[in-house]
Amino acid sequence: MKALEGFIHQFENEISIFNLPQEPKNLYDPLRYFFRLGGKRLRPVLTLITAQNFGSKGNNALHSAMAIELFHNFSLIHDDIMDEAPFRRGEETVHKKWNNHIAILSGDVLLVKAYESLAKCDAKYLPSLLNLFNKTAAEVCEGQQMDMDFETRESVSEEEYIEMIRLKTSVLLGCAIQFGGIISEIDEDMQNALYNFGQYIGIAFQIKDDLLDLYGESAKVGKQIGGDVLSDKKTLLSIKAKEFGCDMQALNQINDNEQRILKAQELFQEYGAKSYVESKMRHFYSKAISSLDLIPAERKKLYLEFAEFLKERSH
Amino acid sequence: MKALEGFIHQFENEISIFNLPQEPKNLYDPLRYFFRLGGKRLRPVLTLITAQNFGSKGNNALHSAMAIELFHNFSLIHDDIMDEAPFRRGEETVHKKWNNHIAILSGDVLLVKAYESLAKCDAKYLPSLLNLFNKTAAEVCEGQQMDMDFETRESVSEEEYIEMIRLKTSVLLGCAIQFGGIISEIDEDMQNALYNFGQYIGIAFQIKDDLLDLYGESAKVGKQIGGDVLSDKKTLLSIKAKEFGCDMQALNQINDNEQRILKAQELFQEYGAKSYVESKMRHFYSKAISSLDLIPAERKKLYLEFAEFLKERSH
Repeated sequence: MKALEGFIHQFENEISIFNLPQEPKNLYDPLRYFFRLGGKRLRPVLTLITAQNFGSKGNNALHSAMAIELFHNFSLIHDDIMDEAPFRRGEETVHKKWNNHIAILSGDVLLVKAYESLAKCDAKYLPSLLNLFNKTAAEVCEGQQMDMDFETRESVSEEEYIEMIRLKTSVLLGCAIQFGGIISEIDEDMQNALYNFGQYIGIAFQIKDDLLDLYGESAKVGKQIGGDVLSDKKTLLSIKAKEFGCDMQALNQINDNEQRILKAQELFQEYGAKSYVESKMRHFYSKAISSLDLIPAERKKLYLEFAEFLKERSH
Repeated sequence: MKALEGFIHQFENEISIFNLPQEPKNLYDPLRYFFRLGGKRLRPVLTLITAQNFGSKGNNALHSAMAIELFHNFSLIHDDIMDEAPFRRGEETVHKKWNNHIAILSGDVLLVKAYESLAKCDAKYLPSLLNLFNKTAAEVCEGQQMDMDFETRESVSEEEYIEMIRLKTSVLLGCAIQFGGIISEIDEDMQNALYNFGQYIGIAFQIKDDLLDLYGESAKVGKQIGGDVLSDKKTLLSIKAKEFGCDMQALNQINDNEQRILKAQELFQEYGAKSYVESKMRHFYSKAISSLDLIPAERKKLYLEFAEFLKERSH
């Protein structure tokens, strides 16, 4: 974990000095506020690890890592509007603290700033970086749309759910790590191996998120436990519980929130959904690790540490 | 006008075959719908004119012109949410026909598609194109924020208003025309001259828009006349009318919409705001034309035709 912390620290420093214009205040203040809320910085760390691992020169790693993190923050600000989320990392979301219109426009300019960071990379890398970034950014939007579409659907299959989280969450981790490969000029097979590691670890990460939402400790997760159950959100847990015969309607008819969450914890375990989802998570961790077969052992260390960190996290 | 029509036709053809993914439908159908609403295609035409004028090769002109038009459409979809506009070009706006969340996300992916088009240009032009595009895109967001901020301000000065429309509208015309210069590899002085033409013609164009909103013919403008007066919007007309002593409060107290519009037409003329604004418009047309001093006469023709077309338009 020590090594990862160094990269996180390096990136935190970079984002704390990231320069935004002073005016118009209502456009840029929300972004300054949002940056201060922090975050795990997982994605930029993947870029920085890879750039160091494979010997990238100059500031390409910091610029491309920044593009990834700015894009991630843009997508959070807009997703929070669409999900009507009041809180993010224990603080008010931008659209709550200001309003929807300001959150839309601040998000828009943040997406532009992401491209601005990317454009600071050496010209010779720009076509590859830009093509991967554009493809990834469109996929993230597609994933968010699928997630919204699922809300009004009667049922969603496991495959559809995995595809949704792959697009909404995981491809950006793949992009982040491949950026490190592009600016280190490693060959395409290695780039693809790294991309797959990022993608599979991202799917595992999101499945873990779903588990923590119901079985995590409230204080550690930093939000109320059971939010997904209370909003009847389709997650792998609820999809499998339903498939395995759990009476979801009966569950949703429990009026008391605390009771409903306790009952869900119990039923999802009883019907085998919890253990199924845990095994799925391990499956994607394994896929992530075996994606690294091509990578020389001495260069695997940081990725394995990264995977271990995600696997063991309690929030 | 014949020559311009050729370029418009060429671009309409290009956008009609523009390929968007089929799925998710709720993400891409709104964009297909919005493209069908059409538009004047002024911005991409500026790129195409310039590329032909200065001998750009290959498909760089079409790709960069497309980036400009996609960005313009993105900004319209998001602005319509923020302005709570029910109609665009006589049809329902995206957020009315679908909903705000879908309009946010479709807009987002459209901005990504704009960058995707730009990335199709030859690699040697990418750094310059990208830097100008990023700068312009951020400025357009800043202009939109200023416009929103003006709504709740007691008063706005002429200088502030001109700066707002420069950012919100004009820099994108400057960017469009300079794109044509970049991909034709003309020197920087010429590029700047073209940019200034685009920028000044854009300011004149927006001032003309304000005039048409109150003094245009409803059938030609394609929307109800007097919308700015009814929503008490700050435009150069109302800013100057107020400055020249017109009693805006009395005007806003007229309950009957038709009466209020007629009274505004009368008062803004009586107080000299109309003629002042018309002279401002001519001033920026002149600045646009004299920006072209550097450009050889035989290459000016299409720009002069473009300026004339904007000046004479009745909608």
